[in-house]
Amino acid sequence: MINNHADTIAAVATGQGGAIAVIRVSGPDAFKVCDTVFRPVSGKPLNLAKGYTVHYGRIVDGDETVDDVLVTVFRSPRSYTGEDMAEISCHGSGYIKGRIISLLTGAGARVAGAGEFTLRAFMAGKMDLSQAEAVADIIASEDRASHTLAMNQMKGGYSAGLRVLRGGLVELASLLELELDFSEEDVEFADRSRLITQIDSITAEIESLKESFLLNNSIKEGIPVTIAGEPNTGKSTLLNTLLREDRAMVSDIAGTTRDVIEESLVIDGVRFRFTDTAGLRETDDRLEGMGIERARNSIAKSRILLYVVSPDGKGSYPVDAALAGMAALRLGENTTVFLILNKSDMVGGRKVDPAAILRDVNSGDSGSYLTGSTETGSALKDSSKTTFIDTGSADIASAVKVDKILLISAKEGTGIDELTAALSGTVDRDSLFAGATIVTNFRHYEALLHSGQALERVRHGLETDLAADLVAGDIRDAIYHLGTITGEITNDEILGSIFSTFCIGK
Amino acid sequence: MINNHADTIAAVATGQGGAIAVIRVSGPDAFKVCDTVFRPVSGKPLNLAKGYTVHYGRIVDGDETVDDVLVTVFRSPRSYTGEDMAEISCHGSGYIKGRIISLLTGAGARVAGAGEFTLRAFMAGKMDLSQAEAVADIIASEDRASHTLAMNQMKGGYSAGLRVLRGGLVELASLLELELDFSEEDVEFADRSRLITQIDSITAEIESLKESFLLNNSIKEGIPVTIAGEPNTGKSTLLNTLLREDRAMVSDIAGTTRDVIEESLVIDGVRFRFTDTAGLRETDDRLEGMGIERARNSIAKSRILLYVVSPDGKGSYPVDAALAGMAALRLGENTTVFLILNKSDMVGGRKVDPAAILRDVNSGDSGSYLTGSTETGSALKDSSKTTFIDTGSADIASAVKVDKILLISAKEGTGIDELTAALSGTVDRDSLFAGATIVTNFRHYEALLHSGQALERVRHGLETDLAADLVAGDIRDAIYHLGTITGEITNDEILGSIFSTFCIGK
Repeated sequence: MINNHADTIAAVATGQGGAIAVIRVSGPDAFKVCDTVFRPVSGKPLNLAKGYTVHYGRIVDGDETVDDVLVTVFRSPRSYTGEDMAEISCHGSGYIKGRIISLLTGAGARVAGAGEFTLRAFMAGKMDLSQAEAVADIIASEDRASHTLAMNQMKGGYSAGLRVLRGGLVELASLLELELDFSEEDVEFADRSRLITQIDSITAEIESLKESFLLNNSIKEGIPVTIAGEPNTGKSTLLNTLLREDRAMVSDIAGTTRDVIEESLVIDGVRFRFTDTAGLRETDDRLEGMGIERARNSIAKSRILLYVVSPDGKGSYPVDAALAGMAALRLGENTTVFLILNKSDMVGGRKVDPAAILRDVNSGDSGSYLTGSTETGSALKDSSKTTFIDTGSADIASAVKVDKILLISAKEGTGIDELTAALSGTVDRDSLFAGATIVTNFRHYEALLHSGQALERVRHGLETDLAADLVAGDIRDAIYHLGTITGEITNDEILGSIFSTFCIGK
Repeated sequence: MINNHADTIAAVATGQGGAIAVIRVSGPDAFKVCDTVFRPVSGKPLNLAKGYTVHYGRIVDGDETVDDVLVTVFRSPRSYTGEDMAEISCHGSGYIKGRIISLLTGAGARVAGAGEFTLRAFMAGKMDLSQAEAVADIIASEDRASHTLAMNQMKGGYSAGLRVLRGGLVELASLLELELDFSEEDVEFADRSRLITQIDSITAEIESLKESFLLNNSIKEGIPVTIAGEPNTGKSTLLNTLLREDRAMVSDIAGTTRDVIEESLVIDGVRFRFTDTAGLRETDDRLEGMGIERARNSIAKSRILLYVVSPDGKGSYPVDAALAGMAALRLGENTTVFLILNKSDMVGGRKVDPAAILRDVNSGDSGSYLTGSTETGSALKDSSKTTFIDTGSADIASAVKVDKILLISAKEGTGIDELTAALSGTVDRDSLFAGATIVTNFRHYEALLHSGQALERVRHGLETDLAADLVAGDIRDAIYHLGTITGEITNDEILGSIFSTFCIGK
């Protein structure tokens, strides 16, 4: 697919259904192919039309009119692909789209592969590779945050930054290679300690980009939030309340939710993907056991865990039991944990102070209990009211770091605004929407990783006075990996794997 | 919605997903609205741009770039709606589409209602009402037949024909009304018997249009074909073989198919909607009984019935039992009945002659049996091998007219080509694809019905020498109803009900 730029490609570029559809044709014969099947009202062939003009007429198959269409003409190089291009705007019928594509291929076009128009734009130097990838991200963006990330990448500030880093490395490599030419004479053009400083500075920038990926890459797809906890604590009710719809089936029967249920919600422009899970407990029921295993897997992949606990029969929250339950889970390194004290409507008028409980939990002072208090003002410890599980509170405190405790009633909708605000607060919105460079592409992250590893070898080589040619080789390696991000370095395999994930018609 | 033509409307005109999307803006302020949010690379506002030109630039929200877009300019009256129009071609992201629509409405546009662009085209005299309806049919067309019907209606030949009929009636009404002016003098300008001849000729044309609806309206949606028969005769296997896929679950257990299963298949450009049904038999099982009731309902709505029968244990086809079974069904008046002798692989090498059986069946001579024969050459009657149900063969022959008998093996795929050819043969493809006028719209059919009824009253009035003013009133009634088809007569209610079925953006 990569080297076939002599031919003309065609594909439907708009989605399923709709009143109108657009078919794109690009390549040296774009106008010739269209003129074969298009009868303009003006009588003037597209081949003679100026760029950026629109032409009304009919698509015909012999004597039959297939559709009344508008055709827009773009002349090379002023087109998306840089080639001659025509865009046929027809009615949105699947039959008509199919007929027109088949007429175009009959006239000499080939059906375009996924992303092939953008691939041609990249090949023509219309954009670099990370910008081409941003095109796919723009199309896939369904909320403000992912849109902002993609638009920033499209603008090319990120690419420019990488080119600066790469330029610095190229300079270092040149210096070291210059030494090689004079290696008989044992001169050092490059001061080693200055080189190390420069390498450290570039490494720091690469590390910061890597970190932006680890913290923020999930913003693009939606930040995964798992709602977990013991059975019947109101997890599904919480999901429904957050979504303001009856998405998950709820009942007062423990174990109502069996499979994981996923729904997403955009809060302040950022998408959160909520997963409601089966209640965690020991069970002999095979289906329930499978559901709980799926819940555990979901938790392990979460960026945020909402661990839900409800009051016991006496109106007390068994917080220590919740901490023990959480400690038994596999949590990701960067997982933010919110302990949700649900069913605040059932604590019998007791005053519960989440902030005080959080202080106790995080000081390791939560002891063997934590509960709603009969007193006002603060959370009092009350061992008589707790559901105690002796897991050793010190272990618990070190095993799970609780970031926030929130008191809510999912059923009555109280505390929900605080919860969504807390979720929103997990995202550094200011730098995100101000256009900070955030790596969101796993391919870029891997390239940064490889580049960083090469620079580590470079640093070690400089420190241990390794031969300049070996150090220069490692710098070239770092340069190579940075170059794959923007496509200064590329090959058919990289391009194939990137563009195959695009949609047809782009 | 109808009279708001002073405002500017906007809507997404393309479908869900896709690489690119098109947003249409139409109305007196179309360019002003777009110029508020569009920053062309050229710096020249759309307001100054010529019609049929395309402009590259950015959609902005303050300082933020929402998307890079192309905007096409159409100037009144040379546009789809006849108004000033802009089409914004943006990336196919749901978020971006939403943002742009919201920016446009912020700049003074209103979100368009369903079909509102086409309504405006109708209001501007760009097309008549039946052509406007054809636009919706074109967009919905998913096969050659429905596409041909819609394109013919769009071309306006149908409208022209109706206008001729209507013109003839207007002339007759004028003649009669002229008499009224001279009513004192008892003159007859219009020869009554010549009037009757003219009325009869117009009535005949209306009848022929009505008939075209009754016979062919299902072509637009797909011709409904029900596969029915006793349990375990291979109905689901037949469906799967026709579709060339494993759509319906099959087993050798009678009653495997419980609910009705629907799938469509395009044969020679015409769509057939196949419904596989539960086997017909007496049952005490409540679920099976519900399935059989649904089967009966499906049969009653079929245009074509494939009644499937399989050989008995001795390799004979119990045709009489099948006839009795069919006689017990509710069949539509125009239903075409094919008797399918399935499992031809199980008749033990006997030669079965479907044509000979059909002759016997239709001559009422099928007696109490019909079966595969041990002889070659013709179907021999063999009462010893039949499953006899004494329903009185004469009654059966009169109750069900079998149009064709086909011998097939759904399992082995034999006889399937003959079956699809026979299905295709039920459609008058020649006149359909040659552009014959076929009414496919129920609203039009109703108007023709009312018009025909009025003409019946006219004829009766003329025959019984009813006063000219009463007869003229009935002619006006007939004219009115014909006029509603093309929209010469219309009102908000009619327009509302027509355009509300359109999609948004058309």
